[in-house]
Amino acid sequence: MAIKTREEYLNSLKKLRPNIHKFGKLIEDATSDPATRRTVESHAKAFDASNDPQYALDFTCRSTFTGEKIHRWNSMMDDMEDVIANAKLKRWMYRFTGSCTGGLCVGWNAQNVMWNVTAMVDEECGTEYQGRLKKWILSAEQLGLVVAGALTDAKGDRSARPSQQENPDSCVHVKEVREDGIVVSGYKAMICGVAASNEIFILPGGGYKEEDKAYAVAFVVPRDIEGLTIVEARRPSDTRELEEGFDVPETGISQAFLFFEDCFVPNERVFLCQEAKYAGKVIEYFTANYRACIGACVAGQGDVMIGAAALMARTNGLAAATFANKMVDMAINNETTYGMGIGAMAMGRKGPGGMWVSDSLLAHANKVHVATLPYETKRLCQDIGGGMVETGCFPSSADFNDPDYGHLVQKAIKASPKFSAESRARAARLSEWLTLGAGVPGCMHGGGSPDGAKLVVRAATPVDEYVSYARKIAGITEEIPEPEKKK
Amino acid sequence: MAIKTREEYLNSLKKLRPNIHKFGKLIEDATSDPATRRTVESHAKAFDASNDPQYALDFTCRSTFTGEKIHRWNSMMDDMEDVIANAKLKRWMYRFTGSCTGGLCVGWNAQNVMWNVTAMVDEECGTEYQGRLKKWILSAEQLGLVVAGALTDAKGDRSARPSQQENPDSCVHVKEVREDGIVVSGYKAMICGVAASNEIFILPGGGYKEEDKAYAVAFVVPRDIEGLTIVEARRPSDTRELEEGFDVPETGISQAFLFFEDCFVPNERVFLCQEAKYAGKVIEYFTANYRACIGACVAGQGDVMIGAAALMARTNGLAAATFANKMVDMAINNETTYGMGIGAMAMGRKGPGGMWVSDSLLAHANKVHVATLPYETKRLCQDIGGGMVETGCFPSSADFNDPDYGHLVQKAIKASPKFSAESRARAARLSEWLTLGAGVPGCMHGGGSPDGAKLVVRAATPVDEYVSYARKIAGITEEIPEPEKKK
Amino acid sequence: MAIKTREEYLNSLKKLRPNIHKFGKLIEDATSDPATRRTVESHAKAFDASNDPQYALDFTCRSTFTGEKIHRWNSMMDDMEDVIANAKLKRWMYRFTGSCTGGLCVGWNAQNVMWNVTAMVDEECGTEYQGRLKKWILSAEQLGLVVAGALTDAKGDRSARPSQQENPDSCVHVKEVREDGIVVSGYKAMICGVAASNEIFILPGGGYKEEDKAYAVAFVVPRDIEGLTIVEARRPSDTRELEEGFDVPETGISQAFLFFEDCFVPNERVFLCQEAKYAGKVIEYFTANYRACIGACVAGQGDVMIGAAALMARTNGLAAATFANKMVDMAINNETTYGMGIGAMAMGRKGPGGMWVSDSLLAHANKVHVATLPYETKRLCQDIGGGMVETGCFPSSADFNDPDYGHLVQKAIKASPKFSAESRARAARLSEWLTLGAGVPGCMHGGGSPDGAKLVVRAATPVDEYVSYARKIAGITEEIPEPEKKK
Amino acid sequence: MAIKTREEYLNSLKKLRPNIHKFGKLIEDATSDPATRRTVESHAKAFDASNDPQYALDFTCRSTFTGEKIHRWNSMMDDMEDVIANAKLKRWMYRFTGSCTGGLCVGWNAQNVMWNVTAMVDEECGTEYQGRLKKWILSAEQLGLVVAGALTDAKGDRSARPSQQENPDSCVHVKEVREDGIVVSGYKAMICGVAASNEIFILPGGGYKEEDKAYAVAFVVPRDIEGLTIVEARRPSDTRELEEGFDVPETGISQAFLFFEDCFVPNERVFLCQEAKYAGKVIEYFTANYRACIGACVAGQGDVMIGAAALMARTNGLAAATFANKMVDMAINNETTYGMGIGAMAMGRKGPGGMWVSDSLLAHANKVHVATLPYETKRLCQDIGGGMVETGCFPSSADFNDPDYGHLVQKAIKASPKFSAESRARAARLSEWLTLGAGVPGCMHGGGSPDGAKLVVRAATPVDEYVSYARKIAGITEEIPEPEKKK
Repeated sequence: MAIKTREEYLNSLKKLRPNIHKFGKLIEDATSDPATRRTVESHAKAFDASNDPQYALDFTCRSTFTGEKIHRWNSMMDDMEDVIANAKLKRWMYRFTGSCTGGLCVGWNAQNVMWNVTAMVDEECGTEYQGRLKKWILSAEQLGLVVAGALTDAKGDRSARPSQQENPDSCVHVKEVREDGIVVSGYKAMICGVAASNEIFILPGGGYKEEDKAYAVAFVVPRDIEGLTIVEARRPSDTRELEEGFDVPETGISQAFLFFEDCFVPNERVFLCQEAKYAGKVIEYFTANYRACIGACVAGQGDVMIGAAALMARTNGLAAATFANKMVDMAINNETTYGMGIGAMAMGRKGPGGMWVSDSLLAHANKVHVATLPYETKRLCQDIGGGMVETGCFPSSADFNDPDYGHLVQKAIKASPKFSAESRARAARLSEWLTLGAGVPGCMHGGGSPDGAKLVVRAATPVDEYVSYARKIAGITEEIPEPEKKK
Repeated sequence: MAIKTREEYLNSLKKLRPNIHKFGKLIEDATSDPATRRTVESHAKAFDASNDPQYALDFTCRSTFTGEKIHRWNSMMDDMEDVIANAKLKRWMYRFTGSCTGGLCVGWNAQNVMWNVTAMVDEECGTEYQGRLKKWILSAEQLGLVVAGALTDAKGDRSARPSQQENPDSCVHVKEVREDGIVVSGYKAMICGVAASNEIFILPGGGYKEEDKAYAVAFVVPRDIEGLTIVEARRPSDTRELEEGFDVPETGISQAFLFFEDCFVPNERVFLCQEAKYAGKVIEYFTANYRACIGACVAGQGDVMIGAAALMARTNGLAAATFANKMVDMAINNETTYGMGIGAMAMGRKGPGGMWVSDSLLAHANKVHVATLPYETKRLCQDIGGGMVETGCFPSSADFNDPDYGHLVQKAIKASPKFSAESRARAARLSEWLTLGAGVPGCMHGGGSPDGAKLVVRAATPVDEYVSYARKIAGITEEIPEPEKKK
Repeated sequence: MAIKTREEYLNSLKKLRPNIHKFGKLIEDATSDPATRRTVESHAKAFDASNDPQYALDFTCRSTFTGEKIHRWNSMMDDMEDVIANAKLKRWMYRFTGSCTGGLCVGWNAQNVMWNVTAMVDEECGTEYQGRLKKWILSAEQLGLVVAGALTDAKGDRSARPSQQENPDSCVHVKEVREDGIVVSGYKAMICGVAASNEIFILPGGGYKEEDKAYAVAFVVPRDIEGLTIVEARRPSDTRELEEGFDVPETGISQAFLFFEDCFVPNERVFLCQEAKYAGKVIEYFTANYRACIGACVAGQGDVMIGAAALMARTNGLAAATFANKMVDMAINNETTYGMGIGAMAMGRKGPGGMWVSDSLLAHANKVHVATLPYETKRLCQDIGGGMVETGCFPSSADFNDPDYGHLVQKAIKASPKFSAESRARAARLSEWLTLGAGVPGCMHGGGSPDGAKLVVRAATPVDEYVSYARKIAGITEEIPEPEKKK
Repeated sequence: MAIKTREEYLNSLKKLRPNIHKFGKLIEDATSDPATRRTVESHAKAFDASNDPQYALDFTCRSTFTGEKIHRWNSMMDDMEDVIANAKLKRWMYRFTGSCTGGLCVGWNAQNVMWNVTAMVDEECGTEYQGRLKKWILSAEQLGLVVAGALTDAKGDRSARPSQQENPDSCVHVKEVREDGIVVSGYKAMICGVAASNEIFILPGGGYKEEDKAYAVAFVVPRDIEGLTIVEARRPSDTRELEEGFDVPETGISQAFLFFEDCFVPNERVFLCQEAKYAGKVIEYFTANYRACIGACVAGQGDVMIGAAALMARTNGLAAATFANKMVDMAINNETTYGMGIGAMAMGRKGPGGMWVSDSLLAHANKVHVATLPYETKRLCQDIGGGMVETGCFPSSADFNDPDYGHLVQKAIKASPKFSAESRARAARLSEWLTLGAGVPGCMHGGGSPDGAKLVVRAATPVDEYVSYARKIAGITEEIPEPEKKK
């Protein structure tokens, strides 16, 4: 099977019904509208890589089911190597685009998570979800689909459960079960890469109890399904994407809110429907791999920040080596989230359906670093780059090229006699974009908050086992238990 | 003397010749143009405070020269209390506006620094700069001027000195000395608050040797002086300031590049002219107070971040107290830069002209914290606020109010049943603006880089004195000197 | 009045009744016993400094009451400069001795705190404590006393109040009030500098309610009062103090447990007796100054660590300048706790009796740094020093001087051809002693835990005021209050 | 083959010639002398574990050569799982003993490293080292040897190379090559676990050039070989090991200096001899696995610190859960060094002899964390534990049990009504021992300094590759190379 190309990918998007909005306007063609074309371009680079011998090994693989060559982001992750390959692909994508390409990530993880979960549900409930899922995966493989994934519900009041919300649409839920499918409604928030995707994989937003069972639903829909309204979210400096000039790169990220209103999903695309007790399993398996791999994302962005900092140093007229200490600190941050994520994969195990599940404790401890270390890396990037980077503090591309006074701006920005003023300006804008502009990917809360990750670390740390080691070494003979909670 | 009001201030700006540009356009009226009116509004709040009994004690004082009541930002800082008052005013301004009001800060410090320096120069060189300066200060007091200050030159190649630059205009310099004044040319970069200022105080950008003496020049000019072209710098998300809606606050900061082309400055406004050896003194005195006080700036912004985080928690449906640990960490960061700056003031001394000079070691050590702790405070603000804050990830004001689908957006954003969706959206946009939007003030490199501050700390740390203490305690009797440098 | 000398000080200690124990033995003479002579030597250095023209300005001052020259540690702290002088003296003492000289610190603060508190109590309760206190202070000034101070009670069960403890002696308390004095019993724990002190100033260990009023007691006793048993605490590597050789310096610190059993204290030495509501004031005033000043202690130790690190670098054959970055980081840590403490003093105010009280918020925020930054400074000292420092990993002084194989040890330790093996060994032992040996002063919990300090920061941070600033900037018009606590 | 037992192990040590000294005395029997019996006890626990069904899977495995069951620490590490097993064993050992058991670690790594290196040397130089090595490994497996390993030379002047040292014995070297073996001399410093070992594996201390070829030597000797003098190093509080009572645990660590004076090593025990260019390979392979695994060491110690902190909280009368946030931070530190080390293993590859070599970049980045995070973990342990832990500030075991006043000490130490005073005292002593006592393992410099690790990170970070990514994203078309170094 031929590996889908950039052109085929772009054409597949052009065919979709326009249902994405931003700035109060409907986007007719996501591949060319300035608000979305950068994220499409970012995803298109993955198709380039799949078709480029230099990267094909990392971007393609053999289908578990058919043995045919497929895009890696449509593949099953049977073992540790497959999850490591997932991490590698993400690091590459950040290096190519500087930011997040969510359409290559969440759907991929979702199909693997649901493979494990449907194995359990089918076994215990007599359902036949896995068969449906396999059929869909086979088609996704063949079509080389880009599949966004959506977990985070709009949620409403944080102190109440889904079924207790004033507005039942605060979370996506099953409104009606028909013979041939289900009707769903509700809002998903902050979903990455939708504008660059062919389809959207919907998973539940949390673990649920029986009373919230309507919210325990997993399915996949075309991006342009009837009843789905998509509104793009803002990002820092996003209006620049509507401007001309060099103040923003040609790649980008997008995030959206999804509004489902009475959407019909046929049965062959439904993989969980009101089996409440498995929603928690979905989250557990999803976060384990996702939080293991997200370290590769921020590492890849960090690699680009090292490069951007070196560009600034050099276009300022200095050697990058002047800042070697700071670059080493940046590199250590990058390798920490990357390497610890790999560690989580290496300590993982096969899930009930045979797909690999990374170690939860290591993955969640890693998430805490993902939520903190990149802030240091960004600070160092700004530290090396200087005031032009820190707040993007220099005139716009329009001023740079102004016929009247542009020559003054250019002379003021010119630093190293070897490199052009524009190169310095572009390096500074890139650094700004990476550290406090539209390129910032949102990995602190993406895939769950650091506080949530710490709860998992807490639950997974066997304090009383550690107490027993300490007692033995200290020679304490009496038991020292935790006091009982006062009632 | 009546204290100048907001209206009088705005009128004084309106009278200025238009010479500010942004986005390739000339700004006709800085008080109403969307690109500059927010910084003007921010500065105007200082006039409100001066006229408000609740804040008048902090915003006004008696003139050292006339005993009349004046705006504090036009005053002389004779002793520690005066510099502490400077810090307090800055913290208030950040609390009122969320960002930097540079027109109230740099010129104020500059006039005090130059008072000390002109005392030395006049004494040693027989010049009469201080008399000129006093005359100007008296008029500034009386007119209640807002005076931006400019040190940072465009610099050109970082590895060469000003007189070695290909382009002599890389740094502002004296081009010609006439009987009645001087002609200056050159570029100053990243100057804060110019668009909200009546005048601009120019200081040299570094310590200079004799061959660079043309660059050792200090003077003050009206903002609209002939020959001066001003181009505003970008800031993150600055295009939002051109939009309607709630995606950006009504206050703001501005920073600009100044291009002097053969500007004539009359003698009564020139306070240093080619006395190269005093340029270093200007920098030394300037940075000591500036870096002591800047801790109050970031503390004030941090106060607003605590408030914004609490707003997010509550509009999310939670108690702010849930995040008390994180807010305490934020508060400690704020109090650290504030309190350590106060410590630098308390350990200061009177300079040669009688104006107070903060302790250099403590001030520069504080600058290192100013360059790092706010990054943690921002991270914590985003951590508490959630994904909507982290990258401003929710639809725009235009989408929020869209007649077709705005109701969906509003329902998705609504969280706490007690508070409106718009309040939550505004709280999130504020948090975004403070942490990675146009409100980020640029205090890492503003007033000099952290690496520069560390050089001062290094020079001020008496390693060999500390070695002698260590030797005595260790009972080491032989001398342990540093090895001689190899030639 | 002549300033007391080292010899007079030592003699004053020799006259005291032996009541100190360590390692199961009674210490006959604290000035010569190896377990206590180092802390006495450390304190004696203060008498040297008082009598040394180079330091006399910092170590002596004029009595507020008599105008006579006195040791500074017996003085009243009327204003900011006096508290800054307190901080300076502490930094000097650490530079001279490498560790804590508690007998010069806590009693000094106690007499000032009680001056403020007795002013309130006398005013409100009609007592005459301040007159008694003045009489005692006059005598202490004249005798040049070293006065340890004791707050921390043994406490017993942390989840119960003093009057609820199984053992009433868990905290020091008034057992009987007689006409001519009081009888006290109970235990104080971790009291610094007792073995080097002439007297001990006892303060309550916390704020108390009426039912705990017996614990609200302040008084001063001779160190050798009848009924008082003192047991010295261990410290890391303290047994080395009993050895010969260079494995431990000649200065040192001591900390002790005090056991009062039915001790009679005459009225003229009692300054608070069961006035429960003022115990909290004692703590408030005590901690404000103490936590402001303790930053100078750890700064002084940090200065010695910089010196010790430079000694290691040089005796290893390298330039100290090789590690300039790390030394700058160490210096910044030192100046932070020092400078922020000074900031707390500068923002202080006069207390009810006229003695200066540092700003509580800044002082407690500083305490958090005191509890963390020195750990980084120690780590850097070990980092520069190498493996010999990290765990003191090289043979003992006895092995170094062994007649059979000592020559081998010496050859192995010799590094730089310029400096002796013994100098390197002594530098390493000093570094070990400072970072994980008997010199570690215990400033994390000394004067209260960092968690306690954070509670004060939390209480002193006006979150709702900050919310109001944030609301105004964000343009939020509705009130956003904290949710009411559920009952 | 029967797995060697604790008793057999102890007997094997008793048979060795006494050649270890400490405190100026010869140690007759390392298994019973108080200066060394604790490290022997620590190592003996590994034999217990090998013979305990609960741990046998982790402590034993099948010999690669014979298929027989052997102690894992004598095994070949053919693949990733084997190196992970190495890490696991180390974490267990720290949990069992609280500190380092170097005799189970360095020799094990050394035999694997030399397997890879001898494959290269034999291939390229026609030597037959691997055959000799295999013979020795087979015998070590069979005898269940504990084998210390020694890399770090005494070094002498850090600014000179081995062959330039005044004293040629500053580093271990070949003095003479005879037909049947070699004669070696020189000093190795800070070698862990020697007193508990049967044999010592000597590796070169660095990468060498041809002129230093005498220093490129690898061999293994019995611990009691003729001509070898061993002097134990001090550690913090090590004298307590000579005392009675509970002030120090029954397990422990030891480190020693080795003095080789004309020792003859027969050819069958020599695995590298003057092949200078391979010394660097030894270091490269050694550090890769060692620094990957050392994260497990500090993680294991951190586990015990969590346990010790919980013991303190509970014996203080509080719930450990009160400090959950801090324990989570401790756990994250532990899992970071552990997990990132595992990541380094997972990204490793087979070396030239087929033994697994962890990824160098990740391993060295991890070493930087190993040199920093445990300091935070220790600080948190002291923070939770309180002042008794911070400096071990309470009376000694001898005072606790003193017939006269011991009852007072016990009453003062008693806190929770549920647990004995002695349990609290033991928990505090354990915490002290772990954080600033004899249990501190020395992992900052052990296995190489953090600065050395950073050099590897620097070398392994492809800055120019990252520059190319940044350039493409920024749209910079000209090349931006590093400036050429000035000559």
